[in-house]
Amino acid sequence: MTSHVDEPGSLATPTRIRSSVFRNKVTSAQAAVEFIHPHDTVAISGFASAGTPKAIIPALADRIHAVRGAGSNFTINLLTGASVSAGTERLLAEVDGISLRMPYQSEPTARRNINSGRMDYVDIHLSHVAQQVWEGYYGNVDVAVVEVAGITESGELVPSASIGNNKTWLDVADKIILEVNSWVPEAMAGIHDIYYGTALPPYRKPIQLTSVEDRIGQPTLKVDPNKVVAVVETDARDSASPLTPPDEISQAIAAHVLDFFEHEVAQGRLPADGLLPLQSGIGNVANAVLQGLDAGPHKGLTCFSEVIQDGMLHLIKHGTVRYASATSLALSEAGIDELVSNIDFYRKHIVLRPQEISNHPEIVRRLGIIAMNGMLEADIYGNVNSTHVMGTKIMNGIGGSGDFARNGYLSMFLSPSTAKGGAISSIVPMVPHVDHTEHDVQVLVTEQGLADLRGLSPRKRSRVVIDKCAHPDYRAMLLDYVDRAEAYPSAGHTPHLLGESLSFHQRFNETGSMLPN
Amino acid sequence: MTSHVDEPGSLATPTRIRSSVFRNKVTSAQAAVEFIHPHDTVAISGFASAGTPKAIIPALADRIHAVRGAGSNFTINLLTGASVSAGTERLLAEVDGISLRMPYQSEPTARRNINSGRMDYVDIHLSHVAQQVWEGYYGNVDVAVVEVAGITESGELVPSASIGNNKTWLDVADKIILEVNSWVPEAMAGIHDIYYGTALPPYRKPIQLTSVEDRIGQPTLKVDPNKVVAVVETDARDSASPLTPPDEISQAIAAHVLDFFEHEVAQGRLPADGLLPLQSGIGNVANAVLQGLDAGPHKGLTCFSEVIQDGMLHLIKHGTVRYASATSLALSEAGIDELVSNIDFYRKHIVLRPQEISNHPEIVRRLGIIAMNGMLEADIYGNVNSTHVMGTKIMNGIGGSGDFARNGYLSMFLSPSTAKGGAISSIVPMVPHVDHTEHDVQVLVTEQGLADLRGLSPRKRSRVVIDKCAHPDYRAMLLDYVDRAEAYPSAGHTPHLLGESLSFHQRFNETGSMLPN
Repeated sequence: MTSHVDEPGSLATPTRIRSSVFRNKVTSAQAAVEFIHPHDTVAISGFASAGTPKAIIPALADRIHAVRGAGSNFTINLLTGASVSAGTERLLAEVDGISLRMPYQSEPTARRNINSGRMDYVDIHLSHVAQQVWEGYYGNVDVAVVEVAGITESGELVPSASIGNNKTWLDVADKIILEVNSWVPEAMAGIHDIYYGTALPPYRKPIQLTSVEDRIGQPTLKVDPNKVVAVVETDARDSASPLTPPDEISQAIAAHVLDFFEHEVAQGRLPADGLLPLQSGIGNVANAVLQGLDAGPHKGLTCFSEVIQDGMLHLIKHGTVRYASATSLALSEAGIDELVSNIDFYRKHIVLRPQEISNHPEIVRRLGIIAMNGMLEADIYGNVNSTHVMGTKIMNGIGGSGDFARNGYLSMFLSPSTAKGGAISSIVPMVPHVDHTEHDVQVLVTEQGLADLRGLSPRKRSRVVIDKCAHPDYRAMLLDYVDRAEAYPSAGHTPHLLGESLSFHQRFNETGSMLPN
Repeated sequence: MTSHVDEPGSLATPTRIRSSVFRNKVTSAQAAVEFIHPHDTVAISGFASAGTPKAIIPALADRIHAVRGAGSNFTINLLTGASVSAGTERLLAEVDGISLRMPYQSEPTARRNINSGRMDYVDIHLSHVAQQVWEGYYGNVDVAVVEVAGITESGELVPSASIGNNKTWLDVADKIILEVNSWVPEAMAGIHDIYYGTALPPYRKPIQLTSVEDRIGQPTLKVDPNKVVAVVETDARDSASPLTPPDEISQAIAAHVLDFFEHEVAQGRLPADGLLPLQSGIGNVANAVLQGLDAGPHKGLTCFSEVIQDGMLHLIKHGTVRYASATSLALSEAGIDELVSNIDFYRKHIVLRPQEISNHPEIVRRLGIIAMNGMLEADIYGNVNSTHVMGTKIMNGIGGSGDFARNGYLSMFLSPSTAKGGAISSIVPMVPHVDHTEHDVQVLVTEQGLADLRGLSPRKRSRVVIDKCAHPDYRAMLLDYVDRAEAYPSAGHTPHLLGESLSFHQRFNETGSMLPN
């Protein structure tokens, strides 16, 4: 997978490393990882399937494995943009190489290590990562490992297919290892907009971005060459984000969302011309919504999100979407080929930003984002659990959902009404873990329907959520719960029977189903 | 309390109503409330104890009482800034005059009506109110009732001691009733900064406010005179926010906070020169923190908060605080006198803003607010319940705490470790209602100590919270819970025993104490 050059001075062929200062640092991945020491905090590139270092992290996993084989311990703290390539995450998890992981993961081996207590995991809002690391909440960042598409003559870095926190990693790390990946098409240069105006308080200024397509930065990343200890060359594809066609359930959810948009337009609460910028999470439901929009009346839409998936390329090509802003291109193999073959076209319709901008509270609020995120479950009062299966086991993490839900214009959470063949209801009396509170959840959608919670008191919300969103198999149980909870003279603003509020989850833990026998 | 003028044209004495257009609309409170009809949505001024209409709302309560006495129904939907004067809130609640209340209350009769299901209550972030009403989430606003200190020759309004949502109420209401209160010192004119740059998306622009003392608006409120249906004159004091001296518990909490500030300065995470702008909730603990700061090494501090209480005046006078921004002056009788007697001094150190600016996510993030808010309880993983006693009964509401906690630089929650003489622990295994999630809570403080949760996984957090914050009477119970929850091989990222997670609250409901017999 890697092609390293032993004699950097000898390169006669064209190279992505156009600065001799950096050419002189070219080495092998194996040599580069010698700069990483046990207990180091290592910050790497990567957001979703795009931009993870392809050669260096596997070499690091090998090194950790070897050191452990020799009887020594070797763990690092690992900071990323969000999830990274699953293969890479797995390699490090398999060798038990991570003691602390931040801010997001979505890989089964890592998940197992976290849930069994072998790996510490800090699950924070993606918009918080850069500022918290910069502020020193995670101590010193010893090494940054960042994939780039090239190095310019003047020593600036052309980003690859994701930006994530790369700007921050380069700024704060003591030592930097660059992985120059010649697979990334050179024509991708210019799709990026790296904003260098952020600061820690009290030095912050307004971010002068007022529409999705605004460019407020520069196309390259800056780096202090004195901090760069190694440069590794690779020519390796991003791992692909597989794309499955939307199933019936996803299409039903999407249909409710699209109806709702038309209703809001009719009510004068959404602009008929272009709605407002859309944010949607990753996955089947999000893809179904995008596909539905493609068949709908709206053209020239905008998206302001974290990740661009294949569906977005399609929408851009059809003119349904005029402009998409994100921090990562997480595409299938076919999507990667489509992008690369038509990069000059897509560069006019896509911008990739650092995640501190793609998820920034100030921008999310200003642009008036319509936030559509998946969830594990919601309760009858509108509290949402996005992260913890049965309240204890982490699935992935909150990611950017809170960034968009909390400060957006409309905050919607979407899920099939059941999971595990009906054994789990995604509408429950009380969620055993809350990632988005009743104050931040405005609309819930399942294939059953859409619950518009705006302006409703909790006692009104519960009826609407059960009626519109719960699966029929669970509706009577939920209504019975609410009726009995409300029957007490002083049932309270948000009636609950504490002894039963988590009974759906307890029953699932005991019997494998939330349904009674 | 009111002094109304039957023949408005006859006024020879100086008046606060300098525009004849408005003078011609002067009438009695009793006549004014004839413009309010059953089922109207009525938006009134008032934020904490300051700025509630003094004559019109009591007259409205009288009218509702009379209509009900005659056998008809009469309820309104009531929108405010936050809480309003308790006497006023009570009058409307006693006559069952409110069918829907938004966004915050803190009065016992209203609370009782909400908890018994007689009154609908929508408990939302204070920063969301203006935009949600403007967007139409609460339907049409039929009448705005706004207290002002005067009306200028050109027909603009001099605000009184709070601003809250008054700008929005005047903008969106069909009909406007003004209450001109000559008790508000005329010299208060100029303390206000009304920003007219907000918009609904897609027309939002950056708010060019970069420090606490920046003025970005104008000193008066605009109003369309054609919408003004009545003007009522009064001369009535604001109700006073009583101030009790901090007790030992509050002082101990404050001492931990102040130690923490010094620690953060020493670590380079807070500027030694002036820290960062402070936000603190209302109440004894907040006052104790402010008093503690007065005795500390810092001078020239800034505050960016909702409410200015007596303690703040003291700090300003001593130079401890250089500048304070808020939306309301909620003072004791002595505080009101102090302010009024020295208004020319305080006007140079205080600005009152609309609450959409005082609590704006963009500004809170940019300024890097240190958010210090009270809580009812926190769980061992850092989730905070600010609103629901035993998970069901509303206390007050979330108010602005989420605005500051979610987007601030440091998010701290403060509470005594026990309530009700030790029968309630404010540290519990799982909170039965979440207002601030684990992702948004960085520091917990009780009189026992301070738990710094930054960068800690849930399993590490639980130990720190119990060790630092729990009352000794509850520590062993909490540790036992965690030990047993973690003992399962697949206990999960956030270990819980679902059957026991709410047992503290169930025990309290059954026995009157969270402690076992």
